[in-house]
Amino acid sequence: MVIGGGFGGLKVARRLARRDVDITLIDRVNHHLFQPLLYQVGTGILAGGQIAPALRDLFVARENVRVVLAEVEAVDLEARTVTAVAGGELTLPYDILVVAAGARDSYFGHDEWERDAPGMKSLDDAFRIRTRILSAFELAETAASPAERDAWLTFVIVGAGPTGVELAGQIAYLSRHTLAGHYRSIRSEAARIILLDGAPSVLPSFRERLRGKADAELRRLGIEIRVKTTATSVDAHGIDIDGPDGADRIEAHTVLWAAGVEASPLARVLAHASGAEVDRSGRLAIAPDLTLPGHPEVFAIGDMVALEAVPGVAQAALQEGGYVAKVISSRLDGKSAPGPFHYRDKGSMAIVGRSWAVADVRGLQLAGRRAWLIWAVIHIAFLVDWQKRLEIVRRWFWEFVTHDRHERVISYVSLLPDELARAEVESVRRRLASGESGGEASGQ
Amino acid sequence: MVIGGGFGGLKVARRLARRDVDITLIDRVNHHLFQPLLYQVGTGILAGGQIAPALRDLFVARENVRVVLAEVEAVDLEARTVTAVAGGELTLPYDILVVAAGARDSYFGHDEWERDAPGMKSLDDAFRIRTRILSAFELAETAASPAERDAWLTFVIVGAGPTGVELAGQIAYLSRHTLAGHYRSIRSEAARIILLDGAPSVLPSFRERLRGKADAELRRLGIEIRVKTTATSVDAHGIDIDGPDGADRIEAHTVLWAAGVEASPLARVLAHASGAEVDRSGRLAIAPDLTLPGHPEVFAIGDMVALEAVPGVAQAALQEGGYVAKVISSRLDGKSAPGPFHYRDKGSMAIVGRSWAVADVRGLQLAGRRAWLIWAVIHIAFLVDWQKRLEIVRRWFWEFVTHDRHERVISYVSLLPDELARAEVESVRRRLASGESGGEASGQ
Repeated sequence: MVIGGGFGGLKVARRLARRDVDITLIDRVNHHLFQPLLYQVGTGILAGGQIAPALRDLFVARENVRVVLAEVEAVDLEARTVTAVAGGELTLPYDILVVAAGARDSYFGHDEWERDAPGMKSLDDAFRIRTRILSAFELAETAASPAERDAWLTFVIVGAGPTGVELAGQIAYLSRHTLAGHYRSIRSEAARIILLDGAPSVLPSFRERLRGKADAELRRLGIEIRVKTTATSVDAHGIDIDGPDGADRIEAHTVLWAAGVEASPLARVLAHASGAEVDRSGRLAIAPDLTLPGHPEVFAIGDMVALEAVPGVAQAALQEGGYVAKVISSRLDGKSAPGPFHYRDKGSMAIVGRSWAVADVRGLQLAGRRAWLIWAVIHIAFLVDWQKRLEIVRRWFWEFVTHDRHERVISYVSLLPDELARAEVESVRRRLASGESGGEASGQ
Repeated sequence: MVIGGGFGGLKVARRLARRDVDITLIDRVNHHLFQPLLYQVGTGILAGGQIAPALRDLFVARENVRVVLAEVEAVDLEARTVTAVAGGELTLPYDILVVAAGARDSYFGHDEWERDAPGMKSLDDAFRIRTRILSAFELAETAASPAERDAWLTFVIVGAGPTGVELAGQIAYLSRHTLAGHYRSIRSEAARIILLDGAPSVLPSFRERLRGKADAELRRLGIEIRVKTTATSVDAHGIDIDGPDGADRIEAHTVLWAAGVEASPLARVLAHASGAEVDRSGRLAIAPDLTLPGHPEVFAIGDMVALEAVPGVAQAALQEGGYVAKVISSRLDGKSAPGPFHYRDKGSMAIVGRSWAVADVRGLQLAGRRAWLIWAVIHIAFLVDWQKRLEIVRRWFWEFVTHDRHERVISYVSLLPDELARAEVESVRRRLASGESGGEASGQ
């Protein structure tokens, strides 16, 4: 059984699907998400379906794979069962369990900030961020006072890692180009975009030369960079920060969060059940062969685990998934297990502008359009299906030529804060699943 | 000033934009919706952005047109102002007012049914219906009992006009082809699809020969048709109906509503202010030149008005929009007004299967693939922009060849009932717009 259809879980399931085993793949959404392109959904370039193939589609020809749309709530390591909630509660047995449940945004103990500073981990998040960004310009256009207008035209991105830098660059491009000339009371180009990070520079995980180049490009795009600066409070009207120049307040109706992640709560569930440890980010400590200590039949991989010198990136999850598939395969064949997992760093990249990136690949440090081309080729190559590849390349080409963006729908629904939506869905589910279905239904 | 960016309002604005006048176009969403293709979004073929161009995009080159994203709440005919709510309340003056606010689903006095039987008038509705349909198959797969499974695999569509017929046909196709073989515990092909209408046949607005052909094609697709049958109650678990065979109950978790529309509440607002009348569907009675009686400076067009022998369809709204633009133009030129509005019926069409339609065009009655081709050509021709045309044709071609659908994302958010979402957005807006912004904000 595999929990999670992200990069790691999908890799395990695809590799093992060819073997004579029964696989149950559980996810709480019905799609695999190609997260590296999520910011393009969040900023109106791509449609959701273009980066999110239905998990069922990927396994339709594999009769031995069963996809279950449900949210895992508990794991019983003794009974070897997983409890998950769909319409009702399901209890599913396993022989071998691979947990690849990923990570979510971390607010460092201030979960109440999520409402006013949404992060971007799921498609829902991306739709919500798209609505927030586009609505901000609309509400600036009809603002009652200059102060209100300025607050709507101020965008603060907390966290200057790859996601924060991508978002800042895209908002800059939207305001300076895509939306230029669209409004009558405001100039969208005047939008103020502020990127802040507690580290001493943007893209702290990159080497110094690329950090400097990225910093210069971001400033050229008109983005204000505040480093060594942290958020001390976030509300609907702005953000309080603390930095080298002391405490400050920025009035802004749009604050986006890209400051850090914490492991899926399932990491704690497994830790609690097995006595394993979790680190400060809630990530599970696992053995060198990626198993849960004392439980060779349970693997955990991806962003929810802590492994020395392995970053929380897609390529790590993919490599771990491949490794786990190999371990399980060798057990099926009765062969000896391969050695411990070893991570091979294939480099890292970040998009800074529209067609400007930094790339650190096999010792080569590139910045600019060349790096962007490499980024584009690699990301298109990793997409799971051909039709999506073609459509995305076409949209990119169109956007490149016309500066136009086609996913600009502002939806009532996506304005909703996440936790509220989930709570509501929860209650709808319970209502549907409840015993009520019998007697009173026809009595209305 | 034009209220509403649908077919009618957009036509007026586009025609008059070339004249030396200032136009304010108000809509509560930021896009024009190409409603005839909405069912394709609702069933996963197209992405939202593909049928919904941003209104601002359409007028970016027209400096004299101002697009305002706001919900109109009141019209003061004496002061000649419109009050609308965006971030805060706006009061906008007008010289000439064109109200084209459209219609919404009518539950014939049972608005409480909306939660369990959503209609399809907006993109939000379509996303919600897509989520409901796709989730139903998922929840059938994990259902705890055969009765629950069957209720998830039963789809009831209330109303067998063009929209109901399109939805029924698409669900049939989804279950019989697109999703076939995707599940392990259920056969999606076994889905039961019931189409009901109070009229004595499907597509009651069509001529008898085409009604008969459509009926036969729907039955061939495995759809159960119940005519002369009305809904007497709807709840989360099913629907009570009354028909020729007496009262009956259908256990179904998915009930979709396509049974009728009622005019926008703005029709009543105008009626109340001017003393004009509204009919049973809330549609406003207007003069033969489409003005509000006693108010030659106020026009009302489209689905929100009642005109004898004019159906509530896109082509009527388009013709009315063109007519109003002509009347206003002749006033600007100081010429005499054209004669009263005269509707020219250019025919009607309905999609029954995947590439099967009925068309009644200039006396010609067609059924089958030829009618579908005509439908496809006309609908593509009427789309407002070229890139969308190309993308849609490509998606259709792809779906035609592979039976595959690319917009299959099930979103947490879109599971939410509409009225809840709106209430929540309302409260978010109020919170943002409220006086709170000053003092306490930084005090947290």
